[in-house]
Amino acid sequence: MSQERVVQIQQRMAEQQLDAVVLYLAENIVLTSGFYVRIPGLGMIAVPREGQATLMVADYDLDRARRTWEGDLRTFTAVADTTGLEGPLTKNLQGLLGVGPSVDRFLREFAAEHGARGGRVGFEGSFEQVAPPILVEPNTVGLPTQEFLRATFETEALVDFTDALEDIRSVKLPHDLEKLAIADEIVRFGMDAFRAAATPGATEAEVRSAIESAICNRGHGYRGVETVRATCCVAAGDHLLSHGWNYPITGSRRIEDGDLVMVEMGTVVDGYWADTTRTLVAGRPGTELQREADAVVRAAIEAALATAVPGATGGEVDAAARGVCVASGLDGVYPHQTGHGTGFRYHEMRPNLVPKGSSVLREGMCLALEPAFYSEALGGGVRHEHNAYVTADGAVPFGSLDFPFDGP
Amino acid sequence: MSQERVVQIQQRMAEQQLDAVVLYLAENIVLTSGFYVRIPGLGMIAVPREGQATLMVADYDLDRARRTWEGDLRTFTAVADTTGLEGPLTKNLQGLLGVGPSVDRFLREFAAEHGARGGRVGFEGSFEQVAPPILVEPNTVGLPTQEFLRATFETEALVDFTDALEDIRSVKLPHDLEKLAIADEIVRFGMDAFRAAATPGATEAEVRSAIESAICNRGHGYRGVETVRATCCVAAGDHLLSHGWNYPITGSRRIEDGDLVMVEMGTVVDGYWADTTRTLVAGRPGTELQREADAVVRAAIEAALATAVPGATGGEVDAAARGVCVASGLDGVYPHQTGHGTGFRYHEMRPNLVPKGSSVLREGMCLALEPAFYSEALGGGVRHEHNAYVTADGAVPFGSLDFPFDGP
Repeated sequence: MSQERVVQIQQRMAEQQLDAVVLYLAENIVLTSGFYVRIPGLGMIAVPREGQATLMVADYDLDRARRTWEGDLRTFTAVADTTGLEGPLTKNLQGLLGVGPSVDRFLREFAAEHGARGGRVGFEGSFEQVAPPILVEPNTVGLPTQEFLRATFETEALVDFTDALEDIRSVKLPHDLEKLAIADEIVRFGMDAFRAAATPGATEAEVRSAIESAICNRGHGYRGVETVRATCCVAAGDHLLSHGWNYPITGSRRIEDGDLVMVEMGTVVDGYWADTTRTLVAGRPGTELQREADAVVRAAIEAALATAVPGATGGEVDAAARGVCVASGLDGVYPHQTGHGTGFRYHEMRPNLVPKGSSVLREGMCLALEPAFYSEALGGGVRHEHNAYVTADGAVPFGSLDFPFDGP
Repeated sequence: MSQERVVQIQQRMAEQQLDAVVLYLAENIVLTSGFYVRIPGLGMIAVPREGQATLMVADYDLDRARRTWEGDLRTFTAVADTTGLEGPLTKNLQGLLGVGPSVDRFLREFAAEHGARGGRVGFEGSFEQVAPPILVEPNTVGLPTQEFLRATFETEALVDFTDALEDIRSVKLPHDLEKLAIADEIVRFGMDAFRAAATPGATEAEVRSAIESAICNRGHGYRGVETVRATCCVAAGDHLLSHGWNYPITGSRRIEDGDLVMVEMGTVVDGYWADTTRTLVAGRPGTELQREADAVVRAAIEAALATAVPGATGGEVDAAARGVCVASGLDGVYPHQTGHGTGFRYHEMRPNLVPKGSSVLREGMCLALEPAFYSEALGGGVRHEHNAYVTADGAVPFGSLDFPFDGP
């Protein structure tokens, strides 16, 4: 991976007069280096004002890291040191995992070498939702890590660098879009399995398993992919209404003939995320009302895509999609956002596609578009969610928008 | 669920002279109320110095919350307000999701009512690993939430309450142990599937799917369980050595006759976690060395269980398990901890079972014990990991330690 993200970070550092930035979150390490951390906290990037950034990984991850990162790369002995350490609150997470001494030494040397000792150090202070590393237990940047940065840089000047990171990452580079396109292809293995499994008599849980299994089995090794995980919620019929319309909880309910069945799914492929939803009718063709709702939701996505040109606001995109739903005259609720950013996390904060939303779209932004209809008359809800990226001519979905509404 | 956890929290609050504590992390909400948050950040508990604690949940989760929580319960309108809000950095996570106004108002009233305005407010400042809510994208307590607490309580005195929470939660109450026993039973559905699937010719990914599917399909609805998710890494043969011995990454490698196959798995059942590992030999009986290593690892677990009495230190338990391995004379590495706490998160920080570890065991603590052997001569590694709880007579595993080492 090129050093383009490092250059972007250094430009923002100059604006904020920062002497160093240290990144610990899996999603920002993917952003900067392409490396997807395995164990929470066992990866770190230090970026100096100018010159090379350093990626530090566990020793056994050296080869993995080298595959994506061309810059300076160091390792620490992970966990092997653990045995002499303990205490959750007196050391930062790196220390907990036994890598304190080497990371500590490295950061002190880094600070000295780059004239950052006693300087202004940027950190990930405001990430209040985080993407898991491969092992699904995220690390966060809390008080111990902040104390660790103060100690190693001998400074009191920690500066929140979240805004700059959110801004930088909202625009995907060509190599990001390539990975996201692969992720979208893998998602479709799951959606094929969804269509095959969502038949009357199957439980919601069984449909979830079928989808996640298809993605696991076919995604590993697909086009060079190392690691894949899909996590989905599947709900059917009135479960869609009674149980929260946005993220229904998968249960042991059996699908009945004519049920609407919805899957909401987050899929991570080597650290890149897709956020997708599909809805179908099980066992027989949908009612006229259901088919109308399906058509309106699809038209709303098309309207959002066409409106999502560089310079448009999140509010304009939302209005386009919502307008189609309102104009249809169908009776139903659509209480949530039309969409949001995605790519380095299941749900990214920028852009935010909501009424009056002031986010301004830029070429390369990646959107998850998820207009919907929910009503009792409908027997649940219809939502389709596709990911797309902004081009000069509007947003382009990563794959076909086609998905048969009438289940098998 | 009883109010016993609230009483424990209030005792620690008195020691730290706190006027209020506000909890946002899914795992601490489970700890206190039994309620497992669905969408990150859409749940909160406010605990006053004395009197009733309040659980706030999204309106559509009212019935779910009432099933586990007998105390004061409020709701906010989730996401429906979202459409008028935006901006990731100017509001806390609750604000992002459109619930700012009602939570803001509630906390101000709460502060006034309980004399906590301008007082000392405890928060989750040092949780640097977090357990996901149902939707696998955890929230964290970053600068925006801290700013929100300062604003609503009109105070500058935020106090880190992590140490007290880690201490309280390390000892499981009877109702926790009941849930953890159910989780262990569900784990075994997955381990049965592991034995059936880990045959020569299957890919690591296929074995992973088989395990996770069995848990999903059979776990939902089992003994009243609402929601289940298993996430595992499966690796085989030299993959176990070349690719990181602790958390190998599942790949598309096909299992070969005589391979060691290992699954490391985190399973969450209504917010309660199990951390388990099993190893078997695929296709034919293990070599003499492999069988010896298997026997030694099992003996190490037994030694740890016997040593884990109230008052013992983490170091003593580690020494007991490690001593069995060393005494065996087998040549192999065992570079990681003997174990750690588990229950409210995949990996809890207390107690820490490492050499010289000073954690003191107490009755009711829940342990994940994971001694192991890894070596090239072995053809990979053997690890078994069982969860157990401390009683006056030593630790008792949640289920049988038996697991056939020779695969099908």
